[in-house]
Amino acid sequence: MSKPDPCILVIFGASGDLTQRKLVPSLYKLQQQKLLPESFAVLGIGRTQLTDESFREKMSETLEGDASSFIAKLHYLKLATSVARDYLNLVHRLRNLDSEYHAKHNIIFYLATPPSLYEIIPKYLALHKLNDESLGWRRLIIEKPFGYDLQSAQKLNESIFKDWHERQLYRIDHYLGKETVQNLLVFRFANQIFEPLWNHNYIDYVEVTSAELIGVEKRGGYYDKSGAMRDMVQNHLLQLLGMVAMEPPARFDAVSVRNETIKVMHSLRPISDFDDSVVMGQYTSSTIKGEVSQSYRTEIGVPEDSRTETFVALKAYVDNSRWHDVPFYIRTGKRLPSRVSEVVLHFKRTPHPLFGTFSSNPVEHNQLIIRIQPDEGILLKFGLKVPGGGFEAKSVKMDFHYSDLTGTKVPDAYERLLLDSMLGDATLYARGDAVEACWDFVDPILKHFAKKDSALHGYPCGTWGPQAADELLAKQNHVWRRPCKNLNTDGDFCEL
Amino acid sequence: MSKPDPCILVIFGASGDLTQRKLVPSLYKLQQQKLLPESFAVLGIGRTQLTDESFREKMSETLEGDASSFIAKLHYLKLATSVARDYLNLVHRLRNLDSEYHAKHNIIFYLATPPSLYEIIPKYLALHKLNDESLGWRRLIIEKPFGYDLQSAQKLNESIFKDWHERQLYRIDHYLGKETVQNLLVFRFANQIFEPLWNHNYIDYVEVTSAELIGVEKRGGYYDKSGAMRDMVQNHLLQLLGMVAMEPPARFDAVSVRNETIKVMHSLRPISDFDDSVVMGQYTSSTIKGEVSQSYRTEIGVPEDSRTETFVALKAYVDNSRWHDVPFYIRTGKRLPSRVSEVVLHFKRTPHPLFGTFSSNPVEHNQLIIRIQPDEGILLKFGLKVPGGGFEAKSVKMDFHYSDLTGTKVPDAYERLLLDSMLGDATLYARGDAVEACWDFVDPILKHFAKKDSALHGYPCGTWGPQAADELLAKQNHVWRRPCKNLNTDGDFCEL
Repeated sequence: MSKPDPCILVIFGASGDLTQRKLVPSLYKLQQQKLLPESFAVLGIGRTQLTDESFREKMSETLEGDASSFIAKLHYLKLATSVARDYLNLVHRLRNLDSEYHAKHNIIFYLATPPSLYEIIPKYLALHKLNDESLGWRRLIIEKPFGYDLQSAQKLNESIFKDWHERQLYRIDHYLGKETVQNLLVFRFANQIFEPLWNHNYIDYVEVTSAELIGVEKRGGYYDKSGAMRDMVQNHLLQLLGMVAMEPPARFDAVSVRNETIKVMHSLRPISDFDDSVVMGQYTSSTIKGEVSQSYRTEIGVPEDSRTETFVALKAYVDNSRWHDVPFYIRTGKRLPSRVSEVVLHFKRTPHPLFGTFSSNPVEHNQLIIRIQPDEGILLKFGLKVPGGGFEAKSVKMDFHYSDLTGTKVPDAYERLLLDSMLGDATLYARGDAVEACWDFVDPILKHFAKKDSALHGYPCGTWGPQAADELLAKQNHVWRRPCKNLNTDGDFCEL
Repeated sequence: MSKPDPCILVIFGASGDLTQRKLVPSLYKLQQQKLLPESFAVLGIGRTQLTDESFREKMSETLEGDASSFIAKLHYLKLATSVARDYLNLVHRLRNLDSEYHAKHNIIFYLATPPSLYEIIPKYLALHKLNDESLGWRRLIIEKPFGYDLQSAQKLNESIFKDWHERQLYRIDHYLGKETVQNLLVFRFANQIFEPLWNHNYIDYVEVTSAELIGVEKRGGYYDKSGAMRDMVQNHLLQLLGMVAMEPPARFDAVSVRNETIKVMHSLRPISDFDDSVVMGQYTSSTIKGEVSQSYRTEIGVPEDSRTETFVALKAYVDNSRWHDVPFYIRTGKRLPSRVSEVVLHFKRTPHPLFGTFSSNPVEHNQLIIRIQPDEGILLKFGLKVPGGGFEAKSVKMDFHYSDLTGTKVPDAYERLLLDSMLGDATLYARGDAVEACWDFVDPILKHFAKKDSALHGYPCGTWGPQAADELLAKQNHVWRRPCKNLNTDGDFCEL
C-alpha cells in the first residue's frame, strides 16, 4: 500500500473528548503500523490554555507503550475560533511547522467541534487562504451531525462550497469506517455466489438493525434535541442501506462508489403514510434481573414531558429494478436487549415446496446475516435434512467470525478514516449530495412526528421496542430477527 | 412417519459377512427406534447347517444391549439355492412363519449372495410362485454388483424381468442410503439460495471424489477381477453425479426422482478420446511415516503383472442446458491420503474483478463442499475483506458439521435402505434402466483400458494419485481440492 504524502493534521476541538478518546489513539496506532507519513505533525487547537508540553501530557494518558516519538509530533495552539484575527497565529504557526517537518504545505483540518462552528471555521480558514492548494493540498474533515434537518444541511453545504471543493471535503460517518461495513462491498462484489441472489427475485425483505443496550447515560440534554432518527437513521443506517442496496460501481474509488450510493438514496420512495410506515418509541421503566431501569423521561437533562424518540422502526422501499417491492426495514433504539448492529437478508421461500408434504416442521426462509458489531461476522441459515427416515428438513447455520482469522485485529473506524483522509481517499466519507438526500427522506417524517398528537409508543427497557414495530412487519408476514431475547422476561440469551 | 406393513424378510446368504456385520445390526437398530413393523420376522437362508438357535447365537455376537426380543424373531433355513426342489421347504417354512407372525403374506427377499446367484434365485422363487402378489406384496432386494459390464447387466435385467416387475425390485447402492447423499436433495431443493446458482452460468466445474486410505487388504483376489471403475465409478459415483446434476423432480417419490437421475445418465457425453479424459492408476510401494507400504502387485491374491486399476480419474460432461460445458471430474482410489467422499462445486470467478487492482492475493474461486464421509457436513469458501487499510480480499470458510446437530446421529445407510424397502419406497435404490445407462457410459472405457498397451500410471501409496490426474484438470486451469496433504511427504493435515 502506498504511504500518505507528508502533511500536518490540524484538529479543532483538541481539548475535547473525541480527540483524546479516539483521534489521537488512532493516529498512534497508525504510527505503530508505520502507516503515517514520514513527515507528519499534529497541531491541536482549542479554547483551553495549554502548552505543547501540557497538551502532550494530557494526550499520552490514553496511550500504551513507549509513545514518546509519537507524542513529540503533537503541538498545541490556543485559538478563539470566531475571532478572525486569531487565525493569523494559525497561519504563522503552520508556516513554522511546515518548515520544521517538511510537510510540503499539505494540511488537513479536522473539525471536532460543536456543529455550530462548522460554518465559521471553514470560512475563516478560507479568509486566510488556508484553503488555497497552489503549494500543497488542503482538506477539511467535518464531524457529524451534518445539519439538523434538510434546510440546515443545505445551508451548511452552500456556505462551505463557497470556499471549498467537494473533493476537499471529508464528512465523517464513522459507520462507513467500520470493517464489516466495508466488507459488505467485498462480500458482494468479490464473490460469484452472492451477487446473483442480491435482488427482488430472491430476497423477500431486508432488515437493518442497530440496537443499543444502554440508555442516554449523561447525554440526556444533548440527546433530547436530537433523537434516534437524527442520531442514527439519517446518517449511519441510511448510508448502510446504501451499501447493501447499491449497484456495482464502475471502479472502486470515491467518485464511483458514492455515485452508486447516491443513486440508492435518490431511489428511496418518499414516505407518505407515516403511521403505516414508521413507528416511534420511547423507553419506559422496567425491571431487569431484579433491578429497576428508569424511563427516558426521568433521565438527567430530559424534560418530563419529552416526546423525543429513543426508538425508530421504519419501512423503506428502494424504487428501482433490483429492489422492486422489497421492503427495507430499519430499526434502531436505546435500551434494547443487546448492543448489536446487523444487516439481515431474508430470502424468499423456495418457490415450490418439494418436501412440503414430508415436513411437519417447515424450513425457515434462508437468511444471510452480516454482523457489524460486536462479534463481526457472517451467518448463513438454511435448511438441511434431519438425519433418519423420510425427508424432513430443519434450519441449520454456518457461520464465520472475523475473530477466527488468526493474526488479524479489526481496526477502529477512526484509524481507517484518518488514514484514508491522508491518502486523499473519500470513498468511506459521506458526500454532500448524499447527506442532503438522506435528510430529504427523513425530513417529512420528522415533521410529521413533531406534531403533538402523533403516535409515540412506550416500550419497557430491555425489550425489542414497541409492539407496533412488530406489527409494522406482520402486515406483510415478516418478522424481525431477534438475536437476543427480551431481558426483562426471558433472560439474556444471545447469538450471532 | 407411517409404519411399514407386517412382513417377513428372507435373507439369502445369511451365514455371510454382510448379514452379520450390516443387515442384522441395522434391523436391530430399527427395532430400537420402533420403526420395524409390528408383525415381523427374519428368515436367514444359507448353505451352512444351522438351527434357529445357533443362527441367533451367531447373530447376537454383534448386537449390544438386551437384544432378546429382537433375536427371537430370527429364524434359519438351510437351502441349496441351485436345487429347485429345496425351495419347497422355503414355501412351507414361509407359510408357517406367516401364520405364526400374522405377516399378511408380505415378503421381502434379500439377495446377499455372490452375484452368480442373482439370476438363479429370482427364477426359482418365481417357479414356486413366491413372486405372486395376489395375497400380499413380494419384493426383491439385490446387492451390488449388478452385472460385470453392459451386456451382463442387460442379461441380468432381462432374466429377472421375466418374472418380476421393476416396482418389485430394489437394487442396492448403499451410497444412495447415506444421509449426506439424501441431504443433497434437501439442500438443493428446500433452499432458495443454492438452486439459482446450480448451473453452468455460475459453476466452473464439479468434482466428485471418493478416496480410500486403505488398500485391497485381504480382498486382493476379488478386487483384481473388478477394479476401481466397476467397484466405485459405475455405481456409486455416477449415481452421486446423478443427484448433483439432476433437475428438480415433479414429486418426491421413486418414480419422479429416478426419472430425473436417468435423464442425467442419458445426457452423459460418451467418452471418445480416452487418453484425454480418463486416467487409470495403480498404487506402488511407498514409505509413509517410516513404514514401507507395499505395492498393489505384491498384495495377496493379486498377480504380479496385474493391470487392474486401483485409481480412476475421469472427466465427464452432462450434455444438457443446465450443464453446458461444465466438466464433472470423478476421482476414486485406494491408498490415497485420506478416507473422504465429497462433492465440490467450484464456482466461476466473479465476472469483473472490481478489487483486482487492490489485491495482490486474489480470492480463490468460491467453493461449496458437500462432505459425505467422514465428518458429514457442508463447507462454503468465499472471499472477505482483510481487516485494515485498502480492500484486499482473502478466502475464508463457513462450515456446518452434522455432528453439531445436538441429539442426532447419522444412521447407517443399510438402516435407511431396509426401512425404505419395507415401506415400499425405492427412491434410494437404483432402477434397472439407470444401472444399464451407467454401464453404457463405463463399458467403452473399460474396453479401451483392457488393451495391454493402454496407459496405466503408477502412484505411490499415500499420494493423491498419478501426476496425470492433475494434468487432466490442468488443461482447463482446474485443480482438484486436496482436503489432506500427501502422506509420504507432507504429513497428515486434514480438514473439512
